[in-house]
Amino acid sequence: MSVARVAVVGASGYTGAELLRILLGHPSVEVALVCAHKEAGKRVSQVHPSLRGICDAELVPFELARVRDAADIVFCALPHGASAGIVGQLADAGLRVLDLSADFRLRDVSVYRHWYGEHPRADLLAHAVYGCPELHRDAIREAALVAVPGCYPTASVLALAPLLARDLVDSRGLVVDAKSGVTGAGRAPTQGTHFPETAEGIRAYKLGGQHRHTSEIEQELSLVAGHDVRITFSPHLVPMSRGILVTAYASSRDGTTVDRCREAASAMYASSPSVAVLEAGEHADTLWVRGSNRAHVGYFVDSRTGRVIAQSAIDNLVKGASGQAVQCLNVMLGLDERTGLSGAAVYP
Amino acid sequence: MSVARVAVVGASGYTGAELLRILLGHPSVEVALVCAHKEAGKRVSQVHPSLRGICDAELVPFELARVRDAADIVFCALPHGASAGIVGQLADAGLRVLDLSADFRLRDVSVYRHWYGEHPRADLLAHAVYGCPELHRDAIREAALVAVPGCYPTASVLALAPLLARDLVDSRGLVVDAKSGVTGAGRAPTQGTHFPETAEGIRAYKLGGQHRHTSEIEQELSLVAGHDVRITFSPHLVPMSRGILVTAYASSRDGTTVDRCREAASAMYASSPSVAVLEAGEHADTLWVRGSNRAHVGYFVDSRTGRVIAQSAIDNLVKGASGQAVQCLNVMLGLDERTGLSGAAVYP
Amino acid sequence: MSVARVAVVGASGYTGAELLRILLGHPSVEVALVCAHKEAGKRVSQVHPSLRGICDAELVPFELARVRDAADIVFCALPHGASAGIVGQLADAGLRVLDLSADFRLRDVSVYRHWYGEHPRADLLAHAVYGCPELHRDAIREAALVAVPGCYPTASVLALAPLLARDLVDSRGLVVDAKSGVTGAGRAPTQGTHFPETAEGIRAYKLGGQHRHTSEIEQELSLVAGHDVRITFSPHLVPMSRGILVTAYASSRDGTTVDRCREAASAMYASSPSVAVLEAGEHADTLWVRGSNRAHVGYFVDSRTGRVIAQSAIDNLVKGASGQAVQCLNVMLGLDERTGLSGAAVYP
Amino acid sequence: MSVARVAVVGASGYTGAELLRILLGHPSVEVALVCAHKEAGKRVSQVHPSLRGICDAELVPFELARVRDAADIVFCALPHGASAGIVGQLADAGLRVLDLSADFRLRDVSVYRHWYGEHPRADLLAHAVYGCPELHRDAIREAALVAVPGCYPTASVLALAPLLARDLVDSRGLVVDAKSGVTGAGRAPTQGTHFPETAEGIRAYKLGGQHRHTSEIEQELSLVAGHDVRITFSPHLVPMSRGILVTAYASSRDGTTVDRCREAASAMYASSPSVAVLEAGEHADTLWVRGSNRAHVGYFVDSRTGRVIAQSAIDNLVKGASGQAVQCLNVMLGLDERTGLSGAAVYP
Repeated sequence: MSVARVAVVGASGYTGAELLRILLGHPSVEVALVCAHKEAGKRVSQVHPSLRGICDAELVPFELARVRDAADIVFCALPHGASAGIVGQLADAGLRVLDLSADFRLRDVSVYRHWYGEHPRADLLAHAVYGCPELHRDAIREAALVAVPGCYPTASVLALAPLLARDLVDSRGLVVDAKSGVTGAGRAPTQGTHFPETAEGIRAYKLGGQHRHTSEIEQELSLVAGHDVRITFSPHLVPMSRGILVTAYASSRDGTTVDRCREAASAMYASSPSVAVLEAGEHADTLWVRGSNRAHVGYFVDSRTGRVIAQSAIDNLVKGASGQAVQCLNVMLGLDERTGLSGAAVYP
Repeated sequence: MSVARVAVVGASGYTGAELLRILLGHPSVEVALVCAHKEAGKRVSQVHPSLRGICDAELVPFELARVRDAADIVFCALPHGASAGIVGQLADAGLRVLDLSADFRLRDVSVYRHWYGEHPRADLLAHAVYGCPELHRDAIREAALVAVPGCYPTASVLALAPLLARDLVDSRGLVVDAKSGVTGAGRAPTQGTHFPETAEGIRAYKLGGQHRHTSEIEQELSLVAGHDVRITFSPHLVPMSRGILVTAYASSRDGTTVDRCREAASAMYASSPSVAVLEAGEHADTLWVRGSNRAHVGYFVDSRTGRVIAQSAIDNLVKGASGQAVQCLNVMLGLDERTGLSGAAVYP
Repeated sequence: MSVARVAVVGASGYTGAELLRILLGHPSVEVALVCAHKEAGKRVSQVHPSLRGICDAELVPFELARVRDAADIVFCALPHGASAGIVGQLADAGLRVLDLSADFRLRDVSVYRHWYGEHPRADLLAHAVYGCPELHRDAIREAALVAVPGCYPTASVLALAPLLARDLVDSRGLVVDAKSGVTGAGRAPTQGTHFPETAEGIRAYKLGGQHRHTSEIEQELSLVAGHDVRITFSPHLVPMSRGILVTAYASSRDGTTVDRCREAASAMYASSPSVAVLEAGEHADTLWVRGSNRAHVGYFVDSRTGRVIAQSAIDNLVKGASGQAVQCLNVMLGLDERTGLSGAAVYP
Repeated sequence: MSVARVAVVGASGYTGAELLRILLGHPSVEVALVCAHKEAGKRVSQVHPSLRGICDAELVPFELARVRDAADIVFCALPHGASAGIVGQLADAGLRVLDLSADFRLRDVSVYRHWYGEHPRADLLAHAVYGCPELHRDAIREAALVAVPGCYPTASVLALAPLLARDLVDSRGLVVDAKSGVTGAGRAPTQGTHFPETAEGIRAYKLGGQHRHTSEIEQELSLVAGHDVRITFSPHLVPMSRGILVTAYASSRDGTTVDRCREAASAMYASSPSVAVLEAGEHADTLWVRGSNRAHVGYFVDSRTGRVIAQSAIDNLVKGASGQAVQCLNVMLGLDERTGLSGAAVYP
């Protein structure tokens, strides 16, 4: 079996660490180059002590020529804004890129501008494929530039897409109440992620339609529904390191039952080994997926109030970021989607 | 100042411990008797080591005569079902009772039957007052039997009542997504509250209209709204010991703004020192109220989707149980509501 | 009863918040002035949302004249180094000061220099009293400058002092293995206190005799023992917000038993209502003291190895800082030591 | 490459779940049979939801004939006492067994009797090999019965063995202060592992020489030292799910430095890919090894007090139980020790 040479750019954060953890165990990948900016010159194991004795490569500054010489495919784990320029260079040089930032996820440049500001490389948007294999597997296969989805959109879309695809719910009035672990905020320390301000408490943030991931979720749900969909999206910070739980609310169509919801999801994800549909009556739990590339989705119907409640649980750093990126890589390489990703959750 | 002699029945659980913590620091209360069943014969400080050196009273089995001799007012912190019989005896004997169970919270016996089964002392329902001072202060003042609300209803009703009272939202289609700390499940260990099954994960339970507190919330919101209100209620278990955060969703009426919501709450809670209305843009956090009898409420409007998002944060064992019971006692005794309850949250 | 007018200087950190929480509930204290540097101009409730509706005073910059006009006694909760200058001004102006920093805890200026560098106000060292009422109650009563002990020294000294006072252990070879909650590191966010780097893991820091608190512990134990005592001190960071647990190891003298250790502690702390001696066989738990000014101490003897194991548990922000400061204030004012500090732990 | 057929007996607990997680990803193993007692009849994925979509085998009751037909090698993850009988049957039937209980770890039956009571199958003790590959690799290779060490002994012995082997410390007066995550207490819920009794607190248990693992640690350290060694062993419960941190204290020999300690460990573990020796000045952290089969060891010297401080960090369920069992299996099968175990920690 041939081996793909990959580079990781932006390797010093949590998604970088998770990419390395997964890629170093991937049987068809060689990690050929690891780039970082501030931490350049250090060894990977100094920046990520979990990799001591596993990877002692030196972190080098990004240089296009060096990346081009070393790698065929590049994972880019930089912040949005910073990512577009480097991804642009890589794409211009003919390298296939998996970008974990938000820069190439939105198809409509005006939507990008509304949420993020001017786009540095709007010319590439038309070529980028949204890297959710469960929805865009065929396009990913041939893609030169894959925009790996954010953690909230992955969890939200996987839960709701089957309901919209089968018209089991009214697409108006959707509410997504999402609960995230703290790694979703990245590795840089802030007052709000200081341990004593986070442990033993829960709070929402950016309520009232302010979170940028809203735009991604709406884009993907609109594609599935075939018409414009808007959501009320409420992110919460939970005192745990990893995991996203989505509890989404929709008005039921007549005749919608838990079983029909489950069937819709089973059908939509029939070729998607990362997604499991929970039994009727079973509640999703982020513990069950922590450290794995798996997504659990489940459904409840409240017949007293005519509501369908859709749930999903993922690990935000794996299925919500680095694992999903590697899953896309597998699709691009024609491998089984689970290659290097078959491990069960580290439970408990 | 005269001192009320109180008894605590059912003192071995978490709400019992919290009652003792608060009552032992209350300047107008003497804890005259402490009853428990399984733990009878032990000292309070053996069952609650946090009270070592503070309360060494012996736990005694419940006997009506003994309670009647020792106390004027009784706090009953027993499980629902078990509570009704003992509360009935106490009420028959002419003692004023503050019951922390669900047994006397519902006005309609058929609603009780639907959610809990046959009522052992339905005759007392008409005499019981729902112990939320913010809504029923005058009735509590004269009450012989106060049914102290559950933790979820307290948080849910405080957040939503001002909106319904002023018709700022449509009362149809309300969604209450609630997140609770683990003490809400009581002191008895279970598989689901075993540390490794709870830490580092979040999950919902009883989705789809199965949680009994739904009935209480609907009763109180219906009273405020002046017509029947139904809610979709989704409880979640969060890896923290104390606290409830409610994020509630309602369809906005035309012209509803964050400021109008805040004004409605400020007006409704003008005489309620336990409730604070957060600033516009401020998100509630259970950390800010932990260990205190305070409730924080706040509002957001998502103009893109026409939603009002109401938030509240309380400590489930204080404002959601034992603190609220003492607040009711203060009202019954004609004291300042804050007596013995003025402490700030233990933060962080 | 007369009321003392106090000022709090350095009110924006965790010990400042805790001072305010306690002082605002103290019946013989008026919080007359609250000073902070960076946060000056904000209201206390903006900086400490737990005080919303309880204290809305404005934080003002420190000015000697203003403090002198407003207050008789000053709590100073500044970092070491920064504290000495301001404490010096206050002392020169004749104000009684309770300093929570390390600046005036060491009697020997050369020891200070070794661990902290040059002392800015060494002239005041002779006048300062080490603010552990259990050891220095009489001196505190008359003190003009009280140096409130650090959290580690409080826990370590309370556990070991009775053993050394009665010569129940060899004072050579003492080991103090201490475990602290994260608030011990202060309010400023750092990489090492970022939630994901702290939750679900435990680590030591400054092993091998590097932690500055070593000097305080040795000073106080030497005083008790009557000769120089050295300790091996190993601090650890535990994924919890509050609490210090000390497990200390000493070589047993012949004939030392658990009961003799417990008797020694009971005798030493007979007039100390904040300290409780645990039963034989009982293990200390930081949960039992969280949010309270209480210290639990306990003893085990391993007869197989000739070791005495001494334990203590405190809340680092209360008995390890702000509560102890108020306890000293009570001693200075001739009040019952427990005034404003009688509350039980917020458990669980 | 040939594939070993293995059975797992006692698959419903946490070590069972972890065995399955690891074995299902092991390239040279087929999980042929999964046995459980109470949960027999259920599917593995019902008992361990983390395995949904990964393993849907049915749990069957243990029957010797069935195991013998299906498997060549058996992992036994039963409680001590219960294990000996079944391991005995398997051994009598000629199957190779890896036992994760304490039943065959002690060489001296009188030591077993002292700590555990009468041994049900003392005849097998002479044939059992202590399953720590770092110390007994050659014996494990040919063993019919491997007694996989407990979590505390693994961490303690790996830290201290190099020091004793090189006589860098006095073997008298060793202190092992160990801190464990809650999964070490197993899957059955108890009062002491109920979330609210464990979160946000730390406590020791079985202080004073009461913990049974003491005997294992002393046995192995005595073997390394060449003479009887006794330790003071103090286990603590930390609010985290996984991980053991050991901080061990020993009196230094003259001339012992951090570098000599590190060299001793590097030499002893030169052929042991699971063990990494930390840099001088670096503190071990359980976060860095969580979910992996790795052990980190490190050393400090306190020259003021003549103490060597040895540290180690492992994941109690992996290197402290199931991972180590699979590592032994690899040795028995002549495979690279890391096979199926090469993954990095799931960090953070």
